[in-house]
Amino acid sequence: MYRSLRLRQRPKGKIVLLVLDGIGDITSSHSKRLTPLEAARTPQLDQLAKTSVMGRLTPVLPGITPGSGPAHLGLFGYDPLETQVARGVIEALGLNIELQPKDIAARANFCSIDTKGIITDRRAGRITSELNKILCKKLQAIEKIQETEIIIQPGTSHRFVVVFRGGNIEGPLSDSDPHIEGEPIRKIKPKSSSIKTNRAGSIVNQFYQKALLLLQEERPANGFLLRGISHTPKIPTFQERFELEAAVIATYPMYKGLAKLLGMKTLENNHSIEGQFKQYVHSFDSFDYFFIHVKGTDIAGEDGNFEQKVSVIEEVDKFLPILLNKTPQVLAITGDHSTPVFLKAHSWHPPPVLLHSQNSGSDKLSRFTEINANYGSLGIFQSKFLIRLMMANAGLYDKFGA
Amino acid sequence: MYRSLRLRQRPKGKIVLLVLDGIGDITSSHSKRLTPLEAARTPQLDQLAKTSVMGRLTPVLPGITPGSGPAHLGLFGYDPLETQVARGVIEALGLNIELQPKDIAARANFCSIDTKGIITDRRAGRITSELNKILCKKLQAIEKIQETEIIIQPGTSHRFVVVFRGGNIEGPLSDSDPHIEGEPIRKIKPKSSSIKTNRAGSIVNQFYQKALLLLQEERPANGFLLRGISHTPKIPTFQERFELEAAVIATYPMYKGLAKLLGMKTLENNHSIEGQFKQYVHSFDSFDYFFIHVKGTDIAGEDGNFEQKVSVIEEVDKFLPILLNKTPQVLAITGDHSTPVFLKAHSWHPPPVLLHSQNSGSDKLSRFTEINANYGSLGIFQSKFLIRLMMANAGLYDKFGA
Repeated sequence: MYRSLRLRQRPKGKIVLLVLDGIGDITSSHSKRLTPLEAARTPQLDQLAKTSVMGRLTPVLPGITPGSGPAHLGLFGYDPLETQVARGVIEALGLNIELQPKDIAARANFCSIDTKGIITDRRAGRITSELNKILCKKLQAIEKIQETEIIIQPGTSHRFVVVFRGGNIEGPLSDSDPHIEGEPIRKIKPKSSSIKTNRAGSIVNQFYQKALLLLQEERPANGFLLRGISHTPKIPTFQERFELEAAVIATYPMYKGLAKLLGMKTLENNHSIEGQFKQYVHSFDSFDYFFIHVKGTDIAGEDGNFEQKVSVIEEVDKFLPILLNKTPQVLAITGDHSTPVFLKAHSWHPPPVLLHSQNSGSDKLSRFTEINANYGSLGIFQSKFLIRLMMANAGLYDKFGA
Repeated sequence: MYRSLRLRQRPKGKIVLLVLDGIGDITSSHSKRLTPLEAARTPQLDQLAKTSVMGRLTPVLPGITPGSGPAHLGLFGYDPLETQVARGVIEALGLNIELQPKDIAARANFCSIDTKGIITDRRAGRITSELNKILCKKLQAIEKIQETEIIIQPGTSHRFVVVFRGGNIEGPLSDSDPHIEGEPIRKIKPKSSSIKTNRAGSIVNQFYQKALLLLQEERPANGFLLRGISHTPKIPTFQERFELEAAVIATYPMYKGLAKLLGMKTLENNHSIEGQFKQYVHSFDSFDYFFIHVKGTDIAGEDGNFEQKVSVIEEVDKFLPILLNKTPQVLAITGDHSTPVFLKAHSWHPPPVLLHSQNSGSDKLSRFTEINANYGSLGIFQSKFLIRLMMANAGLYDKFGA
């Protein structure tokens, strides 16, 4: 139905989604019963809050802790249960690999195996990124399996990515990772009965045999595991779905990669919040929709660093006028999910969302915090509806029905 | 699932849905940061609020601005995405045409065309209702096309309705309106491949040719456009779905017509709020469910008239004792959608809802306003669930499961 709603006009102003990754938090005895948003000094955000509406987002469904992929797909208006991007593809995008349409990507990590091939450490003692690079270079000696090109890209610590390109192959394939130690590496199997997927299974298993031979003298990383092995999905672009010219202003490859997968244009920046906001001002005339991704809040959450999370929020607040002075028609500030400092990990807690436009109305709340967001007129709603609310605020939709 | 819930008893009291059309509003700098509900003096509503529960309604889905048709279908417990009523049918009901089951209705408006048949003004300069009547009478010279009877009914300004009755025809058909000036009137095409729909397409196109000939000497209204051409949908009646004898007390034909389409009985009244409430008292014993529709709040919103919207609310409040003294077992007060004064149009903002019964409990909120509704125990929920909540409050449902 949503797709049958037509735009009644071209956008007259700019729609801006400012994602403070992992912004949502919870109080704990460690934090004097304040969340980072509550503890931060945010005069700019406070001012904005007074003329905005608020609510909280359910990234997927209640009780689901989302990864970055599904969480962002929701914010971009895609149902994260319908539109799934394989973990291998997400990881490849995160390592800045330019995936081609029929590539199969696998998330990989080095592990330790004993003489009988039983996994003794699924992470090979978390080897250094330097050793990882050396081992990946060794594996890259395998350039091709039949018609399929092999591309290996090291990540951090024990993680890397393998891309299988060409040779008329298709995913998805099962994991080789048994997800438990004390078991052997599993044989990879096609998850569908198509000829292309069977061929892919054969190619990946052949690659495995050759690769394990190359690693057999290494210690501790004498094996590796593959997960989330699939091809790049066919997803309608953001432009196709919402008729908006979109750009991404992010600092981490994964977010740029995911946005690019949806057809958004990547805008380079100097990797500071100030620089990201300035890039928005600079590119203001060229796009309808800007996705600005701030990573620092999530890193601080994952590190369990309360002061650091407060500090990133205050930095956003400090530079917010750059963004507000080149007035967006509609601005939403939220997180893709929560990353509570106390949990040091993504969580299921609904992140707060603030929505501001001339037409938004106001919930008469004085600050943008998790608790205030509970009192807002947006309620708690699924992330996938946010884009529609933003577009409604921009006056883009006609009425539904007479 | 819902349909498998059985009534455990016949209703003992009356269920009343009081719709203040377009009641929901937003604050803006124009309104001293108050909504009309906040600004109005409403001692009766305030008293009621203290022993009621509140929430806000999503008429369709977040970010969707509904028309009156889908918005009311939701309030009556029909999913507005599943149950769609064509625009032509809604307009015909609005002009008080008694539609018969297989009628096809089209929304029509006069336009101006040049000598080559290109549309130069889609609204023919918004001709007067008087001229509209004269032109419709002229078109009514076409009484029949083959076996199909033609019924033409003028509306206001340049708008009218054409009903095609009999001759074994069926919709839906495409619009003849290109929705833009500078293009020719489009040929109408069947939207399905059925024989009946093909026949309907042929009949409507023949009507068009004859009708344009009749208008060719007219200025500026020498053409007309048809939209939303379809037959009356087959909808289970309200009585079939909810086992309630229902009546409508409305002043505008559209709301009476839509309720009638669902099998509700129309109760006439003197078109004042006081008169509507008195009609409820008068007919109290004859029905289980009363839908009372107050139009004034929406008109004031559409006109951007803050004081007028306040005044209609105060009038409802003044006469509310008439309704309350003939005590409904369950009373819900809400809007079908919001019509903010600042926007002068329907909007996507969720209207507030108040629900009162002996079993409702209380949210301990002192007034019925948008902000208070944010704090209510009903939360923000889809309109289509309201009827079930009202029936639960009336003690009509058994437990679901053991």
